[in-house]
Amino acid sequence: MIDLNSDLGEGFGIWRLGDDDALLEVVTSANVACGFHAGDPSTMRSVCARAAERGVAVGAQVSYRDLAGFGRRFIDADPRELADEVLYQIGALDACARAAGTSVSYVKPHGALYNATVHHQVQAAAVVDGVRAFGPLPVLGLPGSLLLAEAERAGLRPVREAFADRGYTPDGVLVPRNRDGALLRDTDAVVDRVLGIARDGRLTAVDGTVLTVEIDSVCLHGDTPGAVGHARAVRHALTEAGLTPGRFVTA
Amino acid sequence: MIDLNSDLGEGFGIWRLGDDDALLEVVTSANVACGFHAGDPSTMRSVCARAAERGVAVGAQVSYRDLAGFGRRFIDADPRELADEVLYQIGALDACARAAGTSVSYVKPHGALYNATVHHQVQAAAVVDGVRAFGPLPVLGLPGSLLLAEAERAGLRPVREAFADRGYTPDGVLVPRNRDGALLRDTDAVVDRVLGIARDGRLTAVDGTVLTVEIDSVCLHGDTPGAVGHARAVRHALTEAGLTPGRFVTA
Amino acid sequence: MIDLNSDLGEGFGIWRLGDDDALLEVVTSANVACGFHAGDPSTMRSVCARAAERGVAVGAQVSYRDLAGFGRRFIDADPRELADEVLYQIGALDACARAAGTSVSYVKPHGALYNATVHHQVQAAAVVDGVRAFGPLPVLGLPGSLLLAEAERAGLRPVREAFADRGYTPDGVLVPRNRDGALLRDTDAVVDRVLGIARDGRLTAVDGTVLTVEIDSVCLHGDTPGAVGHARAVRHALTEAGLTPGRFVTA
Amino acid sequence: MIDLNSDLGEGFGIWRLGDDDALLEVVTSANVACGFHAGDPSTMRSVCARAAERGVAVGAQVSYRDLAGFGRRFIDADPRELADEVLYQIGALDACARAAGTSVSYVKPHGALYNATVHHQVQAAAVVDGVRAFGPLPVLGLPGSLLLAEAERAGLRPVREAFADRGYTPDGVLVPRNRDGALLRDTDAVVDRVLGIARDGRLTAVDGTVLTVEIDSVCLHGDTPGAVGHARAVRHALTEAGLTPGRFVTA
Repeated sequence: MIDLNSDLGEGFGIWRLGDDDALLEVVTSANVACGFHAGDPSTMRSVCARAAERGVAVGAQVSYRDLAGFGRRFIDADPRELADEVLYQIGALDACARAAGTSVSYVKPHGALYNATVHHQVQAAAVVDGVRAFGPLPVLGLPGSLLLAEAERAGLRPVREAFADRGYTPDGVLVPRNRDGALLRDTDAVVDRVLGIARDGRLTAVDGTVLTVEIDSVCLHGDTPGAVGHARAVRHALTEAGLTPGRFVTA
Repeated sequence: MIDLNSDLGEGFGIWRLGDDDALLEVVTSANVACGFHAGDPSTMRSVCARAAERGVAVGAQVSYRDLAGFGRRFIDADPRELADEVLYQIGALDACARAAGTSVSYVKPHGALYNATVHHQVQAAAVVDGVRAFGPLPVLGLPGSLLLAEAERAGLRPVREAFADRGYTPDGVLVPRNRDGALLRDTDAVVDRVLGIARDGRLTAVDGTVLTVEIDSVCLHGDTPGAVGHARAVRHALTEAGLTPGRFVTA
Repeated sequence: MIDLNSDLGEGFGIWRLGDDDALLEVVTSANVACGFHAGDPSTMRSVCARAAERGVAVGAQVSYRDLAGFGRRFIDADPRELADEVLYQIGALDACARAAGTSVSYVKPHGALYNATVHHQVQAAAVVDGVRAFGPLPVLGLPGSLLLAEAERAGLRPVREAFADRGYTPDGVLVPRNRDGALLRDTDAVVDRVLGIARDGRLTAVDGTVLTVEIDSVCLHGDTPGAVGHARAVRHALTEAGLTPGRFVTA
Repeated sequence: MIDLNSDLGEGFGIWRLGDDDALLEVVTSANVACGFHAGDPSTMRSVCARAAERGVAVGAQVSYRDLAGFGRRFIDADPRELADEVLYQIGALDACARAAGTSVSYVKPHGALYNATVHHQVQAAAVVDGVRAFGPLPVLGLPGSLLLAEAERAGLRPVREAFADRGYTPDGVLVPRNRDGALLRDTDAVVDRVLGIARDGRLTAVDGTVLTVEIDSVCLHGDTPGAVGHARAVRHALTEAGLTPGRFVTA
């Protein structure tokens, strides 16, 4: 059984991004923006309510404080302040989730913080400190990242994710966005990717190399062209194959 | 036994306001800023830690979203959004408080939101909705305010406060800040005010009229000249009179 | 010759709102958001560049500081601070405009500030003070508003606008948004409205009363359903009628 | 004749930092915060007015957009966006300055942006692009920095500064803040430093090595303990020595 996660609630005030309602029909885990890169309190509460109705797990998608940059720019934040910002964001979202009858059940860093904590020891540890200050929540991230290593060391459950629509090198890392093959645009390719992971624990790199992977969750993007179509096709194919998606966390 | 409350943690980033450490030696309840008019996550967590060490209750000092105006300007906020903003702020502070071994035990609106909810039915109800969405916390406010009436109607405990250093009219309302007698500047006058409330349930208006009052907490300002001196004198006088200040909430 | 104005550049960071490119083909004056309710520096500069290419006048669409509320909530701002915020916004946009070979040639308040300055004497005067501190720019607003009265008193040119798609009462004021007839949804009705104003100086109220009006500019909304279609139809009809739209200001 | 510059207007809303009035009696150039790391429009306008009264030059102290971090954290900003943010800030301050009868006469990056542009080619070029988009203003920075090299290449005047109270290594670079000798705490040492630069073009490193330097301006800090005392002593000593401080720019 494989978990499907996606970034949700990434509007702010009057502005919207992505199709939250469509994705909530597909995913089993919702990475909800907490106000630092996107996400106002009303959006957060509303996404939590709809996630709770559908049995979708609510995760805190924590970020650098950067609305103007949508959390996509590395910030050389002080580790103690970063930990406290992570704690603040989880707490704010948890209040919204509890008002909706659910709670925050995992944490996933967003954007530049996600990328930084793959290799930035101090920030990876800071994020984990912030999570642990809140409680023993699982941490969702890239297999092999310092973030997951730090989470494990701190006694938190590391949750490993792959990307449904990103190209991988033969070494198992993502093809940089500015290179050919960075993005799978074809729905069949995306579906094959997820089926391969869920059924066989396998993933095919851009050069055709077949990699063996252990993955707990697959990330579906919501803001790329065709994203909702891809997501629906993935869910349909998994169900057809008898691999109904399920949350990696229990409520 | 009377509670003493004060606004704390009202810096932001590099900026500081008031003498938190001095006031934490005096008060029994700390109204901690939650990031909307002041208060960054590290300040919030640090104030919570020091409050927990001293057995001082942590309250959420919720505000309009207005760092530039320090929450002192009325904002005609949509009631649903306002409720959600209140919920968000309480949750964020509660995470900081729990990391420090305590929790948010009451809510007090700040600045213009405090003033608005004295008479603004819709916003008073919105604040109470936000509190109730978090949990059944007491609400601290002005006796006779719609805020406390709405809190009571919603089954939340209304906590009535008086001001140690503000002048009152014979009708029991505050002398507007731009009038003579708005502020008690003399330490003895401030001490007499608090002793009168705590010992006799009495408060003397600007014209000498003696009012009978039922008050659960006295607010000590932290950012006026001489504030810390006043606060210390009040605590000393209460203790001397055998009226040791105590929290209105139990931990 | 009638001016056509529209709100542009109302995205922020990753978020977009409305179809700026389409509207820039239609309007003669662009009310560009200046960063307080929407509008980041790169969006501002880019809109100014495209406006300059097309000979569209650049106006500063000044607002309360309220990204979360998109400037649609009244804020009881201190008049001196409000004036200074207006000055700041005009200056920031003017730098973007000059880098694009044009300059800010008028000012129009946005959202709640627009509505407030219809009747709020102090804020109307504050906006005019802010404009005058920058320079003698025309001020765009509602005929009969205190804003235009204050502008005129201060020696600034008042520019009167009507709305292409809003219903008017027989008294010449807008039908409130929550009433029937508040919005003209039919393209023909919108086109007739603008032709009536531009050709005959007449405007038909919701009850059929024909009002005589003196209008310098017509506001085309960009964010309502069908807005772009309406806007194009208006421009086409005006041109067909030999009433080619033109800027009220000269470059 | 040597210029003395200092960072001013670094409060925000209710919060204050440093003693602007005292420093305006001492310096010849005021680096005024423009709202991105500090500085609200009213503070900006007020500092400009007082600078204009005293004949102090107004410079735009441009920063990353980071109020929470006071602009002291490196942000991996997109160069085009960074250039546009620089342009926006200069324009906003220039409007405040012109309302006060002066204008922005130079630009100095603040905090982490200052440090980054010493060696970060892309961001140094972006800052210069932003300045040039506004106009041919001098750029104030560290001798040997890429910022000054880029400014010169772009035809802008590079203005070289030294620090009155920072230790230098024998190589002429600043002693890192966490090392011994990073800060000159003694007033006499600060005064000797500035006299040495202004009179002899010499600067003594922490190990006693005497360096020959060509410096156009000396930066006086305003927010360190004793800062105002140091600044006054420096001005007094220069005047006594017949080296009356003067602006590097003419009005």
